[in-house]
Amino acid sequence: MGDLAEVRTGSLESIFWANSVAVIGASTTPGKTGYVVLENLIRGGYRGDIYPVNPRAERILGLNAYPSLSAVRRPVDLGIFVVPGELVPDLIDEGRQAGMKGAVVISGGFGEVGAAALEADLVERANRAGIRLIGPNCQGINFTPNRLCATWPLVTERGPIAVISQSGTVGAALSGWAEQEGLGITGFVGLGNKADVSELELVRFFGSDPETKAIAMYLERVKDGARFLDACREVSSSKRIVVLKGGRTPEGRRAAQSHTRSVAGRYEVFSAVCRDLGLIAAKDVESLYDSAKAAALLDQPKGTRIMLITSSGGSGILAADAATDCGLRMASLSDSARGALSSILPSRCVISNPLDLTGDASSERYEQAICALAPFDLADIYVLIFGDPIPGALDAVLKAREKTGKVVAAVYIGGGAIQSEEVASMQRHGIPAYPTPERAVKALSSLLVVQPKECVEA
Amino acid sequence: MGDLAEVRTGSLESIFWANSVAVIGASTTPGKTGYVVLENLIRGGYRGDIYPVNPRAERILGLNAYPSLSAVRRPVDLGIFVVPGELVPDLIDEGRQAGMKGAVVISGGFGEVGAAALEADLVERANRAGIRLIGPNCQGINFTPNRLCATWPLVTERGPIAVISQSGTVGAALSGWAEQEGLGITGFVGLGNKADVSELELVRFFGSDPETKAIAMYLERVKDGARFLDACREVSSSKRIVVLKGGRTPEGRRAAQSHTRSVAGRYEVFSAVCRDLGLIAAKDVESLYDSAKAAALLDQPKGTRIMLITSSGGSGILAADAATDCGLRMASLSDSARGALSSILPSRCVISNPLDLTGDASSERYEQAICALAPFDLADIYVLIFGDPIPGALDAVLKAREKTGKVVAAVYIGGGAIQSEEVASMQRHGIPAYPTPERAVKALSSLLVVQPKECVEA
Repeated sequence: MGDLAEVRTGSLESIFWANSVAVIGASTTPGKTGYVVLENLIRGGYRGDIYPVNPRAERILGLNAYPSLSAVRRPVDLGIFVVPGELVPDLIDEGRQAGMKGAVVISGGFGEVGAAALEADLVERANRAGIRLIGPNCQGINFTPNRLCATWPLVTERGPIAVISQSGTVGAALSGWAEQEGLGITGFVGLGNKADVSELELVRFFGSDPETKAIAMYLERVKDGARFLDACREVSSSKRIVVLKGGRTPEGRRAAQSHTRSVAGRYEVFSAVCRDLGLIAAKDVESLYDSAKAAALLDQPKGTRIMLITSSGGSGILAADAATDCGLRMASLSDSARGALSSILPSRCVISNPLDLTGDASSERYEQAICALAPFDLADIYVLIFGDPIPGALDAVLKAREKTGKVVAAVYIGGGAIQSEEVASMQRHGIPAYPTPERAVKALSSLLVVQPKECVEA
Repeated sequence: MGDLAEVRTGSLESIFWANSVAVIGASTTPGKTGYVVLENLIRGGYRGDIYPVNPRAERILGLNAYPSLSAVRRPVDLGIFVVPGELVPDLIDEGRQAGMKGAVVISGGFGEVGAAALEADLVERANRAGIRLIGPNCQGINFTPNRLCATWPLVTERGPIAVISQSGTVGAALSGWAEQEGLGITGFVGLGNKADVSELELVRFFGSDPETKAIAMYLERVKDGARFLDACREVSSSKRIVVLKGGRTPEGRRAAQSHTRSVAGRYEVFSAVCRDLGLIAAKDVESLYDSAKAAALLDQPKGTRIMLITSSGGSGILAADAATDCGLRMASLSDSARGALSSILPSRCVISNPLDLTGDASSERYEQAICALAPFDLADIYVLIFGDPIPGALDAVLKAREKTGKVVAAVYIGGGAIQSEEVASMQRHGIPAYPTPERAVKALSSLLVVQPKECVEA
């Protein structure tokens, strides 16, 4: 079994690192899936060959179109299928002739609508052809190291998070946020019906991808539980895995059963297993993203002591409330640390934790405070809160990371237009930045194996 | 006491509806508070007279500058003070000569740094001059009906939420989100030290403002508890009040005591009182915003039955999980409702709750589903989830509101570039739109007096 998994994992390379891609069902109509996918491949800067296949078009989006796969007459590594589902199995046979090694079947109309025989036929033909298959009924894939955006929306920012999702929309949301925020992704895979490739192999694939630092997953059911958990155990020794399970509650479970005909297990069991394996169990989409961001950019804190440095008194208070909720301990300032701060800060600053540098704080004041605190080993986590547009905030957080050698995150809130630039710039430098104090603290606490009062899951 | 409060409330009109404003301490240096406030007044489109006061400048931002308040020689209704704190009391006397009726003291250096005598002097002089005073040590005010943005960041979108905040940053965050999302505010007030005007009168002021539909407050302590609660009781009979209390936990409380030297009461008491008065107690900044948005745009649902209509199966499942967490009941479809849906929807749609219209759903499909469901009184709340860029999504939610006559909210997730436009457009039409299913469900549940399992507070 282990060997088979190895062989199969290897073969996913030919999907993500494909040198040529055919879009079977490429459309001339803007907005249609067969148009959007082709457009995103082109706009995403894919450097391999792209072959639009459409029997009723000569050119689409500036590329020569081909009436069929066989008309391409050059090797096609990867096929993206956006034709009606019942046509796909025959086209897989045609793909075999074209040397196809991987297929991403966006088309629906298979197991999810009860057409189990059609899906079985699809898988059988793919197996026979040695073609690995993602989907069917999925939202495509994205792999930024190969500039391969065969999905929507267009996401091109290359970064440390891999997104594996049984819901295309949840995956699109995570990828989209990572794009907007300058965080980026290594890849996104819409699992769809998981007729062939499942989360198991994908965890292994991204687990061995050097650019992936954290894997964010949305799952409704797990296909091959025991082996999946083995894979997670292996991978989680080197990178963090964050999982959101849809169908935690009875009503959610019922909905999941209707969706991809999933049979969901008991959430309590799932959640306990996650904890045992060192996985982070997220409770909603937002905390899946927030935790994955922290996990991708930060090491695990060495302890639970948190130090808050803020220009906004109110935000510091809210962060302290959240830290208490999440089982973190507020770092306490020794007399000598207090003395060091008092000697360099204006008297209106509140020498305490939260350390309130007050509303007129410049990035220099943050840096001074950090340099004064760094010699004292008083905290495992530093959160710098910027409550106004502060030029040079990036320098302050980089200084904090350098001087303290601890886990450092930022909150940027109320900063107006400058905020989104600063956040993107911080994240490109490996510092996670959050829009509220509570989201930062929750995400940081999820990296720890603590028994918090209210944030049992992220 | 009641009469006095009445008289004082009346006089806040002269602050918010001022016909002329002086910025005392207007600066020629971009980025400085005295520059930013003046710039925002101008860029915000304030149509009254603006007088920059600065003894060392002739013109600032294209306006004539005045060496002193007395040099203005025309009536100045409102003074915005951004000079060093110790200069303010004398300038209040000068303001009196200029006919000043209100003062917003952004300057710090008063009670918050222990200078209680200076603060007492300030208040005494303002009282003597009949000048009502906001602050000191505050982030200014904004009142969109008068295009009076005497704060930062610049917020000009006129909308239904009033923001009253003891933290400038928290207020700026809420106002900024409301601006970005097309929701808008009637006003924002940074309370600062509350030396004169407090949350009490502001709740009354915005309570009687016809454009304000909901009041969002961040408070660390309440100045005059019993009378404040009376005011809330009165106001909350006609508009919703959402409160986030900083210092819920022991660590947060300690931080609040350092901040504006607040003595915070026990949170459990506060929270119970909120419930009794029909106020919504939010638990973090994000849910303060989310609940205020729902409260401003929606009536209270008549019951707890929720119907989810989605193009994204996964998002529907997550919404169902959140609904269960928050004590809402999933609406059940009668056989006739199922029949009505089956007869008009493609067979791949999942006729259930969540109603999964599948990934290729157009806005017409949403409208058809809504028209089919509307005759059955099966839900008190409808949430429409759009999991892809769907042109015409606005029409679908407006149709849902019209046809069902129930509480309707939207979730727009994973929609790429089109999303922010659609969200703004929905909110300008009075439909709250959320970025995740869980945030929508939590916000909606906060409108109800339910005893949820996990969302005890929003």
